[in-house]
Amino acid sequence: MPLKKALTCKFVTTTNKLIMDYRIEKDTIGEVKVPANKLWGAQTERSRNNFKIGPAGSMPLEIVYGFAYLKKAAAYTNCELGVLPVDKRDYIAQVCDEILDRKHDDQFPLVIWQTGSGTQSNMNVNEVIANRAHQLAGKTLGEGDKTLQPNDDVNKSQSSNDTFPTGMHIAAYQKITKVTLPGVKQLRDTLKKKSEEFKEVVKIGRTHFMDATPLTLGQEFSGYVSQLDHGIHALENTLPHLAELALGGTAVGTGLNTPKGYSKRVSEFIAKFTELPFISAGNKFEALAAHDAFVETHGALKQLAVSLNKIGNDIRMLSSGPRSGIGEINIPANEPGSSIMPGKVNPTQCEALTMVCAQVMGNDVAIGVGGMQGQFELNVFKPVMAANLLHSAELIGDACVSFDVNCARGIEANTPRIKEHLNNSLMLVTALNTKIGYYKAAEIANKAHEDGTTLKQAAVELGHLTEEQFDEWVQPKDMVGNIK
Amino acid sequence: MPLKKALTCKFVTTTNKLIMDYRIEKDTIGEVKVPANKLWGAQTERSRNNFKIGPAGSMPLEIVYGFAYLKKAAAYTNCELGVLPVDKRDYIAQVCDEILDRKHDDQFPLVIWQTGSGTQSNMNVNEVIANRAHQLAGKTLGEGDKTLQPNDDVNKSQSSNDTFPTGMHIAAYQKITKVTLPGVKQLRDTLKKKSEEFKEVVKIGRTHFMDATPLTLGQEFSGYVSQLDHGIHALENTLPHLAELALGGTAVGTGLNTPKGYSKRVSEFIAKFTELPFISAGNKFEALAAHDAFVETHGALKQLAVSLNKIGNDIRMLSSGPRSGIGEINIPANEPGSSIMPGKVNPTQCEALTMVCAQVMGNDVAIGVGGMQGQFELNVFKPVMAANLLHSAELIGDACVSFDVNCARGIEANTPRIKEHLNNSLMLVTALNTKIGYYKAAEIANKAHEDGTTLKQAAVELGHLTEEQFDEWVQPKDMVGNIK
Amino acid sequence: MPLKKALTCKFVTTTNKLIMDYRIEKDTIGEVKVPANKLWGAQTERSRNNFKIGPAGSMPLEIVYGFAYLKKAAAYTNCELGVLPVDKRDYIAQVCDEILDRKHDDQFPLVIWQTGSGTQSNMNVNEVIANRAHQLAGKTLGEGDKTLQPNDDVNKSQSSNDTFPTGMHIAAYQKITKVTLPGVKQLRDTLKKKSEEFKEVVKIGRTHFMDATPLTLGQEFSGYVSQLDHGIHALENTLPHLAELALGGTAVGTGLNTPKGYSKRVSEFIAKFTELPFISAGNKFEALAAHDAFVETHGALKQLAVSLNKIGNDIRMLSSGPRSGIGEINIPANEPGSSIMPGKVNPTQCEALTMVCAQVMGNDVAIGVGGMQGQFELNVFKPVMAANLLHSAELIGDACVSFDVNCARGIEANTPRIKEHLNNSLMLVTALNTKIGYYKAAEIANKAHEDGTTLKQAAVELGHLTEEQFDEWVQPKDMVGNIK
Amino acid sequence: MPLKKALTCKFVTTTNKLIMDYRIEKDTIGEVKVPANKLWGAQTERSRNNFKIGPAGSMPLEIVYGFAYLKKAAAYTNCELGVLPVDKRDYIAQVCDEILDRKHDDQFPLVIWQTGSGTQSNMNVNEVIANRAHQLAGKTLGEGDKTLQPNDDVNKSQSSNDTFPTGMHIAAYQKITKVTLPGVKQLRDTLKKKSEEFKEVVKIGRTHFMDATPLTLGQEFSGYVSQLDHGIHALENTLPHLAELALGGTAVGTGLNTPKGYSKRVSEFIAKFTELPFISAGNKFEALAAHDAFVETHGALKQLAVSLNKIGNDIRMLSSGPRSGIGEINIPANEPGSSIMPGKVNPTQCEALTMVCAQVMGNDVAIGVGGMQGQFELNVFKPVMAANLLHSAELIGDACVSFDVNCARGIEANTPRIKEHLNNSLMLVTALNTKIGYYKAAEIANKAHEDGTTLKQAAVELGHLTEEQFDEWVQPKDMVGNIK
Repeated sequence: MPLKKALTCKFVTTTNKLIMDYRIEKDTIGEVKVPANKLWGAQTERSRNNFKIGPAGSMPLEIVYGFAYLKKAAAYTNCELGVLPVDKRDYIAQVCDEILDRKHDDQFPLVIWQTGSGTQSNMNVNEVIANRAHQLAGKTLGEGDKTLQPNDDVNKSQSSNDTFPTGMHIAAYQKITKVTLPGVKQLRDTLKKKSEEFKEVVKIGRTHFMDATPLTLGQEFSGYVSQLDHGIHALENTLPHLAELALGGTAVGTGLNTPKGYSKRVSEFIAKFTELPFISAGNKFEALAAHDAFVETHGALKQLAVSLNKIGNDIRMLSSGPRSGIGEINIPANEPGSSIMPGKVNPTQCEALTMVCAQVMGNDVAIGVGGMQGQFELNVFKPVMAANLLHSAELIGDACVSFDVNCARGIEANTPRIKEHLNNSLMLVTALNTKIGYYKAAEIANKAHEDGTTLKQAAVELGHLTEEQFDEWVQPKDMVGNIK
Repeated sequence: MPLKKALTCKFVTTTNKLIMDYRIEKDTIGEVKVPANKLWGAQTERSRNNFKIGPAGSMPLEIVYGFAYLKKAAAYTNCELGVLPVDKRDYIAQVCDEILDRKHDDQFPLVIWQTGSGTQSNMNVNEVIANRAHQLAGKTLGEGDKTLQPNDDVNKSQSSNDTFPTGMHIAAYQKITKVTLPGVKQLRDTLKKKSEEFKEVVKIGRTHFMDATPLTLGQEFSGYVSQLDHGIHALENTLPHLAELALGGTAVGTGLNTPKGYSKRVSEFIAKFTELPFISAGNKFEALAAHDAFVETHGALKQLAVSLNKIGNDIRMLSSGPRSGIGEINIPANEPGSSIMPGKVNPTQCEALTMVCAQVMGNDVAIGVGGMQGQFELNVFKPVMAANLLHSAELIGDACVSFDVNCARGIEANTPRIKEHLNNSLMLVTALNTKIGYYKAAEIANKAHEDGTTLKQAAVELGHLTEEQFDEWVQPKDMVGNIK
Repeated sequence: MPLKKALTCKFVTTTNKLIMDYRIEKDTIGEVKVPANKLWGAQTERSRNNFKIGPAGSMPLEIVYGFAYLKKAAAYTNCELGVLPVDKRDYIAQVCDEILDRKHDDQFPLVIWQTGSGTQSNMNVNEVIANRAHQLAGKTLGEGDKTLQPNDDVNKSQSSNDTFPTGMHIAAYQKITKVTLPGVKQLRDTLKKKSEEFKEVVKIGRTHFMDATPLTLGQEFSGYVSQLDHGIHALENTLPHLAELALGGTAVGTGLNTPKGYSKRVSEFIAKFTELPFISAGNKFEALAAHDAFVETHGALKQLAVSLNKIGNDIRMLSSGPRSGIGEINIPANEPGSSIMPGKVNPTQCEALTMVCAQVMGNDVAIGVGGMQGQFELNVFKPVMAANLLHSAELIGDACVSFDVNCARGIEANTPRIKEHLNNSLMLVTALNTKIGYYKAAEIANKAHEDGTTLKQAAVELGHLTEEQFDEWVQPKDMVGNIK
Repeated sequence: MPLKKALTCKFVTTTNKLIMDYRIEKDTIGEVKVPANKLWGAQTERSRNNFKIGPAGSMPLEIVYGFAYLKKAAAYTNCELGVLPVDKRDYIAQVCDEILDRKHDDQFPLVIWQTGSGTQSNMNVNEVIANRAHQLAGKTLGEGDKTLQPNDDVNKSQSSNDTFPTGMHIAAYQKITKVTLPGVKQLRDTLKKKSEEFKEVVKIGRTHFMDATPLTLGQEFSGYVSQLDHGIHALENTLPHLAELALGGTAVGTGLNTPKGYSKRVSEFIAKFTELPFISAGNKFEALAAHDAFVETHGALKQLAVSLNKIGNDIRMLSSGPRSGIGEINIPANEPGSSIMPGKVNPTQCEALTMVCAQVMGNDVAIGVGGMQGQFELNVFKPVMAANLLHSAELIGDACVSFDVNCARGIEANTPRIKEHLNNSLMLVTALNTKIGYYKAAEIANKAHEDGTTLKQAAVELGHLTEEQFDEWVQPKDMVGNIK
């Protein structure tokens, strides 16, 4: 959440007045004072001043890293295709590597809420690379001939309009494959183990939150596994669209000012540097003007949120009590649950997980609303779409790991309680449908309910069957086995 | 929209007092008066009386048809597996065929806003089949031995909990494949043709809604085609999950009271009857307790809505004017546009299309909110999830066809306007970046803008290049060709 | 739900081929064949043909009735201000009264998914009024001099752009005040009675779905009452904005072609005819270009949905069981709950209610997405915004009444179960915080939990207090009384 | 956005291994190692370790400050009511003041994604206060008798369940009144000034994005002002609900363990300390179990987002060009617009603003989804609801100021363009409706459109009126004046 940083940032803004040291940087509009010790240039500084919206630095660093990959790839491609000299390529690549080594995290102060093309973040990267290269060349910032021009060299064969979506895709693909999917799979594997561990534990089923026919606790958990399996599959289905890169489209998708062969080659370099299967987008006009790939991928994240909310809520309710709830499972007691009620233990991991799900549901709408409002050759909701997807992808991955480690692994069946519930159940009567028909079975259940007796008593009293028949026909363990 | 029918329904409710003819039907709770001329029974009538929420009959008929397929398939399977006699099978099948021939559309008066398992709609179908079979057997409704028992025969080997989701999946799969996908593809094909038709029409590009470098009108349309291609692909990706049927899970997913081999076989019958690739869900617990398949499929519908909103809005803006807008394309004038402004023509198809998109965005949230609130063995938001998905699927399919027939096919390039815009553009200066660098090029553009002159004039005046160089280097048609 | 009608409509469309009888109607574009027995004219017929999206007639009739009020009011105002003769006024008023008497419900076949200004529905009303007046004048449709001109007489001093939003506001205000608010208040009053009825029933509290300190069942219900009170207040807060009418703005908000004094006077007539406090909007430019009043009012409906979902879900869980759930209240058994499980009773009204809430959550997004996309002088998402608000307003009102009559009124405390839960509770230990401190109290609770004993046993064994002290200090009934 | 900090945080996590200095803290579960230089205690440390979800410290500091106010108020109330000695009160108050002076911002490392009651953040505050008081008492952390007990003293008469919502309300009320409302009002005032400045500038209207009848630029802007006025009013309408504080409800709303008179008095102290009109919630059960006040307030923020999106998008489109767009206003050129297109200026403030609107639309859903899932006596989506509301409130306030300062104030009418558009308009024909009727007027417009001539030429050629009549009747400046 940006709020804490926002406040900090405002102080910084105030304190900025104290900063005396600056240098002059220029862009096509004119001169700008930039803090002397910072690598960024005029356009970054303008953006800092013009967009004081929320906490500073809210633009996700993952996108900066995505830029580092693509700037390096563009430099290699430009060099290979004869439009950039080797020394410039190497300067660019060296700074990109430093960025990826997280040596310059404090050089990217811009916010999400800037121009919707992310131009200013592209220029932030271009400026940092150019200025850092100047240092690497042994020169002093703001003095001497420029070692690299931010626009003509670092941004060569590029536009914000194709670089920012490329950075978005790289960041999202990495986050999904390195945080989200591993996290979900880890939880899925634990639930699978639990499903097997509990496969003999026959318990009462609940439909409409009312007592129903029995199943095993393992079967109940197998449903969660199946949900996550489907969700993982759905998320993986979206990756090919996300692997399509806009780079090479430049300003409007035509690839103006790129050398022949550029767009295919630059994607190959990105794929090589990231070790991920990126390809050049088949249609660059879509790739700039629409971010349906983000809508698609986040749709799958939302599906996972829907699944995880169900799972988290079930675990919460199954573990409720300890004395006056459902109480059929025990979960780990990780912390004191209450500041006022001594000895209370709460399903806190379920709560964190389901709060994450609520956030993802909201982020899905933010992404859709941004995605639907592109105009002509450019969608200018890129940063908000990118930030929301990365937010969801990280939260889901992290929350699954947290839930797995601090809750799921420690789940135990509360066997005495499970047995008590099972044996009391009136819905075991369902087994009699195929013997005496639905109507007579209903009579038995109703009588037992009204009299507060067992089904067997009611059945025999009504004369619908004998005690022996009841014992033979109504066997919970026989009621759970028709499908695996 | 239910509102019109709702009002009607209230009149009906009032007028009901006048209806004198009824017969007595019974269920396990007791007797109920049912209109004499109706085929439904006690439980349907109870539901009519207990759920007066919105207009009567709001439960989509598509779901009833889905039930007809599955009841017939269940009858065949039950018969084949030896638990239902042939004559009962044939009665059931015959009524199901009548329902599918839409002979009984007026026998399904229930609303979406009933029990969340759809039990009452399942019983509505069971009761109609049983009573209609009674008629087919030559008997009078309410008299004589029951030809079929609604629960024991028609519902044999079934529960609402597995039939309703099966009916939902059948209805949704049919709607998606018979209405949505054909509609979207039809529009996609027209846009593809337009993209080819306009492939030589060089025009100004617009990014940030501001003049940018040129592209062809065909390229602009190719972006729309690519969006829809990706959307179609994404929607098709969701079909395998949607093809998984819950049938065979019965009450809680264990398949209690089904004969051996039932779930696989009944899905085969459904696949045969519908000619669609339905299969038995691998995990029945998920199939009852969660409807992530609906969340998944509707996620793809939402993606299409996002795409279509962009397309519809672009067409609206491109055709704006006739004299003071963008005006680069002409669209068909299908109707007088204004009740007060004579001679006005409006982009009405764009408006219908984008309103549909707004609805689909909303429906997506309704489905997500329903999907995330399942509890234990049952999600009880089935009808609302089903209705919203069917609503979106139909609207998108219909709106694409309407937009195609009444707008897209008739789109024409307004060549004089396109040329005027192109020739005035200051962004042609971008072609000079690789010749004289970004900064000098910016100087030219700024000077032309301030002086209100052409780029060429400004360029020559600044002395950055000669007239001849300008004419050679700044060629709009050369600026659109780097990628196809 | 439109789906059933949609299908029907398609049949109609097919069958239309059989309709031979038509007459010719004209508009500024040319001639159109209209079914001979219908009162609508050329523009309605064009819209029917051009917008085959979803079921026919989906435009809510409530909006048509809103139009009837405003057309009559405009006729009276125009007459009073000297721009319409008395006889024309009277014809218009007479037809409007017939429409309000629901004599022409079948004359409004248009869909929501038409032009986003609702122009075609405005013309539908204009045409029906003009043609019906022609009949009232004793003439034959399509023959003789027009009794009324749809545009020049019926639409005099009006535009679709100000009439449609006026119709929307009238429809919404009526629905909110006649269906929604009475429904919510009815449920609120029942819950208030229950809160008083249960005010002495001390029961266990639950936080985090875990056993907590006690409260009374009446206090629990008082929270529901307070939620609805706040929701009702919030909804009422939005009515003044909804009472502002656009009429008098005509095409773009300037009031072009209206006589002096028109906008104020016409609102007075509408207020008089509807007996509702409508006023002329202070700013007509907003009133055409934005529908923030709908966003505002639906925001309050969404708040009610959020409240009702909580209430419905709580009642569902409190009544769960009958043997293995929470089971602290009993709710009426209105129908057999299961098609397979005999004797099952389900919280079906809770399910209908919470499904309605899910729908309203979705409708809120549809309205927001439509509301945010107005352009310049007109928002063209009027029909979709109107339909969704009316949908939610009706569903909430109806669902509250249904829930009240079929569930809330019949709620009973299950006293034995409540006592059992209360007496077992470990959280009664909280009463000891102020006597022996939080840490020692926690020790007692933990010991009792681990040993499976009572708190008293554990307390005494630990030596933290005597049996007598325990009995004096730990009194559930003393733990519920500090506030109220 | 948390993403940047998240990465940082992970490094920290890694580096944590290097931290050797810790002390032992205890809670009811056992001992925990806490970094020696930190003021927090065992429960905070447990939460840090158990909830590694997203970046550290994401819990908004505003909520911590809210806690500081309430802890101080509780101490004063407890002292006044005789249950806390003066010296303890003063220690608590002193640390709270330090927190409010932002001296301990780095002592609150917890995340949003913790227990849904915010218990751990409450304990974080309790622990920091207790430990800091220990220092103030001249003692060493972890040594000697505790100066204050976190639970028994700092948390006296409180529970997380009533403190966290109280902290939420304080934080939200402050943010709304100190950031959101001032920001929106500032923008509203500028738009109002512009509306007056432009009140004589007659321009073409646009409905359906098509040329329509004229209005003044001032009238167009007055619509924006009216939207914001309504939005401000709607937001202010929600403040009374937000002013209701849960404090005094303690664990479940009954006020267990609070002294008589506590809840009223503690709210008075909070009102005094914050100088805001806080009161004790009339129903504490609602105040813990539901956060409809947040749903309500955020509904108004969403309404503002809907309004601002319309305004931002209009400004973007009105300023489009410079040569091939609408171009009727000029906006400030704050930065170079493109990294590839020299001299390009973009409506970047509009983009930041509309991205904020997209985020707020999403946040609204997150809040609704959280709000609807409360269970029994507690809603456990408190932190996610609080964080989203604070996020939206800050973004809207900041974005309005940024848009105001960097865009709205600098808006100028582009008079030549406005005149050109106005004079070309065919919709001026509407003025003739009342003279020659809608049909003949339409004929004129159609003819002028087809022939590419002026309206006057077409009118005269058709013989519907003379040149003199045209000049008299068709006067744009007479077409804008009927209302206001």
